[in-house]
Amino acid sequence: MDQVSDALPAPLLTPLKQIFHPKGDVYHALKASDAGYAGFGEAYFTTVIEGETKGWKKHLRMQMNLVVPVGQVCFYVHDENTGMTTPYLLGTGNYARLTVPPGYWMAFRGMSAGTNLVCNLASIAHDPLEAMNVALETYPFEIPA
Amino acid sequence: MDQVSDALPAPLLTPLKQIFHPKGDVYHALKASDAGYAGFGEAYFTTVIEGETKGWKKHLRMQMNLVVPVGQVCFYVHDENTGMTTPYLLGTGNYARLTVPPGYWMAFRGMSAGTNLVCNLASIAHDPLEAMNVALETYPFEIPA
Repeated sequence: MDQVSDALPAPLLTPLKQIFHPKGDVYHALKASDAGYAGFGEAYFTTVIEGETKGWKKHLRMQMNLVVPVGQVCFYVHDENTGMTTPYLLGTGNYARLTVPPGYWMAFRGMSAGTNLVCNLASIAHDPLEAMNVALETYPFEIPA
Repeated sequence: MDQVSDALPAPLLTPLKQIFHPKGDVYHALKASDAGYAGFGEAYFTTVIEGETKGWKKHLRMQMNLVVPVGQVCFYVHDENTGMTTPYLLGTGNYARLTVPPGYWMAFRGMSAGTNLVCNLASIAHDPLEAMNVALETYPFEIPA
């Protein structure tokens, strides 16, 4: 039963609306009343060039809510308890929000030419003391092909 | 002294950091500890095609925190108490956050070819009962050239 108590809450993938407007569309991202919302600490953007991968990082306290309003990004979410890595392709063609509870390792790769923009609506502000970083080259699991 | 009691809190323009990274840059947007933060209700994106203008809209309760991570957008903030319209050009070349307290009329125009992306980190969730809309063509003030 110890394994049960170690289990992480599952990541959550929530499809989001894109509302057409002739002058420019509107994209939903996150409401305080949505499943997956765990408070607001900071919002920031990160871009990732096509073919480049950023990671691995594990947050000990931050819950991430990730949206890709421009381009396409693949997120790789690794659970060290199970050894499983799950890919989530977000952005063009799959506009959705990925909620990642603290405790997972994550890497992400730019999948389209041009701008690949990630918005993280994070439950706490950036704090280097709550995040662990390991170089892609040295961490002993691989990104699925 | 009545005019003083009618005065709106001033909009706030806050320069933001863009942190270079060889795999893709990181852009600050908003922390809960920042000046201008008034709670989190909803985050959403709106795009605006070059040369198109969306507006006018006045929020009665929502405080907006506006960031332009892609492209360039000009926001026109009108104070009906003073009759003044102030333009704020955000995005490429001026990466900053514009905080607009409730009570102002606002319109915004896409200024660059390609994607012009606005992120609104709003103090309350979308509520059509707290927003007034007036067509650009009928509202009796003009966007500065």
